[in-house]
Amino acid sequence: MSRGTGGVMQRFMKKASKKIGLSPGTLIHVGEKKTEKVRIRVMDYDEENLEEKDVDTIEECFPYLKRPTITWINIDGLHEVDVIDKIGKPLGLHSLVLEDILHTEQRPKMEDFEDYLFITSKMLSYDDRIDRVNAEQFSLVLGTNYIISFQEKEGDVFNPIRERIRIKTGRVRKVGADYLAYALMDAIIDNYFIVLEKLGEKIESLEESLITDPGPDTLNAIHHLKRELIFLRKSVWPLREVINGMERLESALILDRTSIFLRDVYDHTIQVIDIIETFRDVVSGMMDVYLSSISNRMNEVMKVLTIIATIFIPMTFIAGVYGMNFKHMPELEWHWGYPLVLLIMAILAIFMLFYFRKNRWL
Amino acid sequence: MSRGTGGVMQRFMKKASKKIGLSPGTLIHVGEKKTEKVRIRVMDYDEENLEEKDVDTIEECFPYLKRPTITWINIDGLHEVDVIDKIGKPLGLHSLVLEDILHTEQRPKMEDFEDYLFITSKMLSYDDRIDRVNAEQFSLVLGTNYIISFQEKEGDVFNPIRERIRIKTGRVRKVGADYLAYALMDAIIDNYFIVLEKLGEKIESLEESLITDPGPDTLNAIHHLKRELIFLRKSVWPLREVINGMERLESALILDRTSIFLRDVYDHTIQVIDIIETFRDVVSGMMDVYLSSISNRMNEVMKVLTIIATIFIPMTFIAGVYGMNFKHMPELEWHWGYPLVLLIMAILAIFMLFYFRKNRWL
Amino acid sequence: MSRGTGGVMQRFMKKASKKIGLSPGTLIHVGEKKTEKVRIRVMDYDEENLEEKDVDTIEECFPYLKRPTITWINIDGLHEVDVIDKIGKPLGLHSLVLEDILHTEQRPKMEDFEDYLFITSKMLSYDDRIDRVNAEQFSLVLGTNYIISFQEKEGDVFNPIRERIRIKTGRVRKVGADYLAYALMDAIIDNYFIVLEKLGEKIESLEESLITDPGPDTLNAIHHLKRELIFLRKSVWPLREVINGMERLESALILDRTSIFLRDVYDHTIQVIDIIETFRDVVSGMMDVYLSSISNRMNEVMKVLTIIATIFIPMTFIAGVYGMNFKHMPELEWHWGYPLVLLIMAILAIFMLFYFRKNRWL
Amino acid sequence: MSRGTGGVMQRFMKKASKKIGLSPGTLIHVGEKKTEKVRIRVMDYDEENLEEKDVDTIEECFPYLKRPTITWINIDGLHEVDVIDKIGKPLGLHSLVLEDILHTEQRPKMEDFEDYLFITSKMLSYDDRIDRVNAEQFSLVLGTNYIISFQEKEGDVFNPIRERIRIKTGRVRKVGADYLAYALMDAIIDNYFIVLEKLGEKIESLEESLITDPGPDTLNAIHHLKRELIFLRKSVWPLREVINGMERLESALILDRTSIFLRDVYDHTIQVIDIIETFRDVVSGMMDVYLSSISNRMNEVMKVLTIIATIFIPMTFIAGVYGMNFKHMPELEWHWGYPLVLLIMAILAIFMLFYFRKNRWL
Amino acid sequence: MSRGTGGVMQRFMKKASKKIGLSPGTLIHVGEKKTEKVRIRVMDYDEENLEEKDVDTIEECFPYLKRPTITWINIDGLHEVDVIDKIGKPLGLHSLVLEDILHTEQRPKMEDFEDYLFITSKMLSYDDRIDRVNAEQFSLVLGTNYIISFQEKEGDVFNPIRERIRIKTGRVRKVGADYLAYALMDAIIDNYFIVLEKLGEKIESLEESLITDPGPDTLNAIHHLKRELIFLRKSVWPLREVINGMERLESALILDRTSIFLRDVYDHTIQVIDIIETFRDVVSGMMDVYLSSISNRMNEVMKVLTIIATIFIPMTFIAGVYGMNFKHMPELEWHWGYPLVLLIMAILAIFMLFYFRKNRWL
Repeated sequence: MSRGTGGVMQRFMKKASKKIGLSPGTLIHVGEKKTEKVRIRVMDYDEENLEEKDVDTIEECFPYLKRPTITWINIDGLHEVDVIDKIGKPLGLHSLVLEDILHTEQRPKMEDFEDYLFITSKMLSYDDRIDRVNAEQFSLVLGTNYIISFQEKEGDVFNPIRERIRIKTGRVRKVGADYLAYALMDAIIDNYFIVLEKLGEKIESLEESLITDPGPDTLNAIHHLKRELIFLRKSVWPLREVINGMERLESALILDRTSIFLRDVYDHTIQVIDIIETFRDVVSGMMDVYLSSISNRMNEVMKVLTIIATIFIPMTFIAGVYGMNFKHMPELEWHWGYPLVLLIMAILAIFMLFYFRKNRWL
Repeated sequence: MSRGTGGVMQRFMKKASKKIGLSPGTLIHVGEKKTEKVRIRVMDYDEENLEEKDVDTIEECFPYLKRPTITWINIDGLHEVDVIDKIGKPLGLHSLVLEDILHTEQRPKMEDFEDYLFITSKMLSYDDRIDRVNAEQFSLVLGTNYIISFQEKEGDVFNPIRERIRIKTGRVRKVGADYLAYALMDAIIDNYFIVLEKLGEKIESLEESLITDPGPDTLNAIHHLKRELIFLRKSVWPLREVINGMERLESALILDRTSIFLRDVYDHTIQVIDIIETFRDVVSGMMDVYLSSISNRMNEVMKVLTIIATIFIPMTFIAGVYGMNFKHMPELEWHWGYPLVLLIMAILAIFMLFYFRKNRWL
Repeated sequence: MSRGTGGVMQRFMKKASKKIGLSPGTLIHVGEKKTEKVRIRVMDYDEENLEEKDVDTIEECFPYLKRPTITWINIDGLHEVDVIDKIGKPLGLHSLVLEDILHTEQRPKMEDFEDYLFITSKMLSYDDRIDRVNAEQFSLVLGTNYIISFQEKEGDVFNPIRERIRIKTGRVRKVGADYLAYALMDAIIDNYFIVLEKLGEKIESLEESLITDPGPDTLNAIHHLKRELIFLRKSVWPLREVINGMERLESALILDRTSIFLRDVYDHTIQVIDIIETFRDVVSGMMDVYLSSISNRMNEVMKVLTIIATIFIPMTFIAGVYGMNFKHMPELEWHWGYPLVLLIMAILAIFMLFYFRKNRWL
Repeated sequence: MSRGTGGVMQRFMKKASKKIGLSPGTLIHVGEKKTEKVRIRVMDYDEENLEEKDVDTIEECFPYLKRPTITWINIDGLHEVDVIDKIGKPLGLHSLVLEDILHTEQRPKMEDFEDYLFITSKMLSYDDRIDRVNAEQFSLVLGTNYIISFQEKEGDVFNPIRERIRIKTGRVRKVGADYLAYALMDAIIDNYFIVLEKLGEKIESLEESLITDPGPDTLNAIHHLKRELIFLRKSVWPLREVINGMERLESALILDRTSIFLRDVYDHTIQVIDIIETFRDVVSGMMDVYLSSISNRMNEVMKVLTIIATIFIPMTFIAGVYGMNFKHMPELEWHWGYPLVLLIMAILAIFMLFYFRKNRWL
Repeated sequence: MSRGTGGVMQRFMKKASKKIGLSPGTLIHVGEKKTEKVRIRVMDYDEENLEEKDVDTIEECFPYLKRPTITWINIDGLHEVDVIDKIGKPLGLHSLVLEDILHTEQRPKMEDFEDYLFITSKMLSYDDRIDRVNAEQFSLVLGTNYIISFQEKEGDVFNPIRERIRIKTGRVRKVGADYLAYALMDAIIDNYFIVLEKLGEKIESLEESLITDPGPDTLNAIHHLKRELIFLRKSVWPLREVINGMERLESALILDRTSIFLRDVYDHTIQVIDIIETFRDVVSGMMDVYLSSISNRMNEVMKVLTIIATIFIPMTFIAGVYGMNFKHMPELEWHWGYPLVLLIMAILAIFMLFYFRKNRWL
């Protein structure tokens, strides 16, 4: 639990204070420190040709950018500020863009710089070990014939797109960089569904245990799930505007024929948001059920106590009466006194049981 | 319960992950696998003539599409990807449209492709066996003089419309394909009222049992109903925009005289949404009543316990006192000691009963 | 209670399913069946003359409609479909308008058909016998020099307006049909205040009993009131748009000088909505108070039990100790043993009472 | 409490029904009946001269209205319909305006009649005796060179403005009637802060008692406060639009240089609304705290009961065992039997106390 | 706690009433009284030169304002009304602006006076001693080549900006006063993150204690936190509009190249708001968890009581029966009577334990 929270706090702020007071555009990587090498992959293609390679230094990519072919530079890892700084120069990227790429706590957004578009959003994954949704920042610079994409760490989300580029007859080879940008965004949002599926399974199994055996663990799990949904919502909501903005953008960078595909991505985003909202409704309904079932359980406990007490307390009283040591207690002398008292007690008990049955307590 | 949830999860996601990473427009049927034959029904009519038949292959329909008459092709079953693929070609449907038709988890939407309109929405039905609202995807392509409608499985919702077409003097025979599209949408939304009626009955009977005998089952039923309403809401809300969009569309495909009918459908949609919202309010009010009645019941139980305990505990104490074995207890020697003690006990009990009556516990 | 719900369900749906699958404009009366005769009243007036009569058949009204004077035809009762059908012909009313008039589950709305305006809204009344708000549909067709108004059953809401028409010097005689339409809408909305007053009284008396004697009945009453407010809200909210639409309408049917009166009606509508929202807030606050007072009551009960038990259980234990039959119990032999034990018990009880007083339980 | 409610109901409706069915513009005073004389005060000034007097009849004011100087007529008391009627004539006020002035249940609003502006809003005061916010209607007619203000009863809110007018060099003497209108509105809204201060003190003292001694009285007080805030909110919210409307008005009646002052009033209105919303949040948080503290208290009570019962019930049982009268009970014969049993009981008690301590119940 | 509230009340109103009835533009310092000297710091710079000094009287600053260089006058302390008054004259500031600067309860806003912009917002800090967010008013007047900033007391938030100005090659030296205004706003909003971090830590530690040891203190802490978030929200929300307004402003005072930087600040503001909303969600979730855990605890207590009572009450009854003094009780004579009864009791106890285990109470 506290782990989950720690996460929420950390994702927002721990890093934010690092930057305070600096001049805008000062490049500082705000995010987890990492030591592995940044991986740079280039794909350069047109309808006829395809060149694909891993490069060691960012400078090796520059020649591709000058060609009329479409160039996709994918950078995995943001911890080498130098790399980001260098890529910005030849493309004339605004210093705030470079800052935003490095500052991994960005809210998803799209900005139009006329020569290029800057888009940033979240890649989500579900970490099974700690039962938590992880968010990684994904940034994208879309120019006339190039795309530069930035991820916090290496992932396999874009592999199917690479496969599609490698197929010479695929649509992606015939159209421009804007279509590739669409394909990347589409892959990211499709990936959200996997996270939602995981959460859906969580909800289902939680619901199971809510009915069979609700306890403090269930409460914690509901609370945790709620928290994850708050986080998810915060990460996905702004995307709606981003995609909508791209679709409506009056820019030469995004062609009309791509708009329809963006509309499709937009529909998916809305669907993701719909599911998140539904999940929120469902989880908050689970909280209600949990609270009611605690009350129900308390009722059960109280009933047992009340039944036992109500049957035995009067009988014990009678026993107490005939346990008194008065000299003159005629009943004590009767021959059938003892069985008579036992009989009275039994009748009393039966009467009580009958009463409880009538009131549906049994 | 868990069945119901399983449903919610399944309807959204289980299938969604199938598609991830594929090129857009790749035709895969995302939905329940079925083995029955896809049924294709054609109605081709103008004011004078009507031709109606079931065809085996989609190719048989193509000649009708070329005629100036109005052609309605109804396809029941989406599991034969081939059929969908083939119908797309002669009409020049965009690959994303074909994909959306097959991907049965679409959010209701309308898209204008100038040559044709694409509309997708949900057909709802209430499955009595598992007490659940089922949603089936309905898609519609409206061209200048044709309509192609797609359903997941065969249904009888459109039979009254077929009857109306068969009547030579009916309005539907005199006007265009846009009116037929309206009629189909109208039939679908009219059908929502049947589902709402079922839910209304559920609510009523639940309310009955909420008053007579609230228990954990009632809680589950309320929770289940809440879930169904969340689902319903999610399916119907976007329809508002769809119908509104159709009404306001500046397109040669929808004539002015049809607009007023669409406005009527729009009013019905708003009415459906109103009822759903009212139901939500009512059901969430039921939850409150349920919780209160649990508390009330607990109060009753506690009162019984308290009354019994408060009357007998002091009397038992007195009996205990005179059960002590002290040598020198003068009361024990008194001749009237025993009846006196019994009298004191009786007075105590009566006093207590009086106190409870005063405090309205009895 | 269940009666109340039955009402809610019934008002929405029972009837709706009747219509499914029919061609639009098919005239079927959707509403309560009635057998009394439909009452048709005509008032025809200009500044100089006034003719007023009850007619038997709708055809008798037609001559009035052709005159340049203002004609108000009021139809009480919608169960004779024929009457509605016939009135539609000479005025060229759209078949959907006639359908809407008969289909009494309409949402309030206004539609502009250029030649005439169609307005439908709800007349509310409070049925004291079953403690429920009843809604009756009121429709209005406003043409250049005529108004046709439709009510479900005869009522006296418009009598003051008739009186005002009879006065030759009244404003209503000098101005057009649009002013009469305003006057009718104004009368309907003024009438809402009477219903609100009734509900206000209900709330007040409920509040009284909430403080003096809250019980399950109070809960049911709150729940019922909440339901009525949901219903009321649903009936009144759309009226806001209707009146606003009339005021802003760019139509020759509504003159500028009438606009300011419509603005006044609009203000009243907003006031009604404000009061409904306030009532909702108040009633939902009552629910909170009810729940708290149940908890408070439980607390009281628990305190009594705890006080009694805590005082007597230890004393009973002591009595039990000296009721043991051990051979060697020196205290039993003491001459002052018995009074000593009684003293100890008394001290214990006093100490306990002191403790409860300190903790403010007494 | 019930008094408070009675107020809410009364303020909305009791009076509203008086008016039903009357022709619009019929002048009836809807408000508390009063018998004191209506007070009419005139201030007539320009940069050079100032004339100030109390008049007996409204006709005495008319000469001032014809002069080019600025005339402020302040009317305290609305119960003499005649006065209102007479002032309307020479200025050509619309009959609905006069009606609105008299009908003191108006929602704050502004209406532009080209020749003059009509503004109505609420003056709030806090009645300490019955702990309630009172609202009095304030109306204002702003013409080119005159202002007529109407209050329900005499008050001292405008005295500082009168003082400012009396100072010959003050800004108010140099500028037009629109500035005076601003000054009046500003005085009214400044006055709201006093009411808010009172409520703020109430909240603070309530919070104090919420922590030290929460009981049913606290609940009632919270409920009452909530109600007052609902009322306040309803009175102030519409003012936002009113002031905003005045600021944006394209009318010769309000000069540009006054706009900036109106923007200032607007800021204050927003601030008032902000505070009300904050108070609502705070009060509804108090309700939560109250409910939790009741639960906490119940927990405490239950713990005491449980501790006492759990310690003594087993010991009493043991005492009961050795109080049995079996012939053959070897322990009874033992010499150390009695002290041994006491020891066992003591150990049991200590063990229980230890257990409670461990579970943090003590 | 009450301290916290006192704060909320005080921050809004205590001071507000001071001003009532005064002419607008009357300069009164509404805020905490202070006695230290107001500190005035001037920085005057262009690309080449920088002059920086502390001045004693505001008049010393005037020469700088006349130069074409950029002049930044920072005034720490608003309690000397005189200073504010004097600075207003040479710059032609509107009297309402001066009033707003002094009236420290302003809502954040931006106003465009053509010659200059007036911006006011809140500087937040977290006071560890009393666990509270403090808000200080910050105002800014931006002219063509000057900025005058006003703070309530001296702080170090702007020191990094001063450092950046001192560096001759920095961007801030090359661009206009609008960029400096941006830098100041940026510094303020960056500072919000520090406050949020503190609150985040609070939430985390509270969550810890919510799981380990929830008690009335936890409740108070949650309540307190909620209050601080309400306050924070109120302070930050309006800033959104302010920054957005600056970005969209069509004014010569803010150059296009600065807009992109303002967009960046805007993004940060949205992020702050997002975090506040998330915190609110999280804290209100904590309240739910707290309430549930109280209920859970109560359940635990009740179970212990019930188990003990249910095991011992029947056994005590049996002991009571054989403690009766009837003459004829054959069992008492039996040689194995006593052990038999003990055995029966043990079996009963074991059976009960078994029952509890089965119902998962143990």
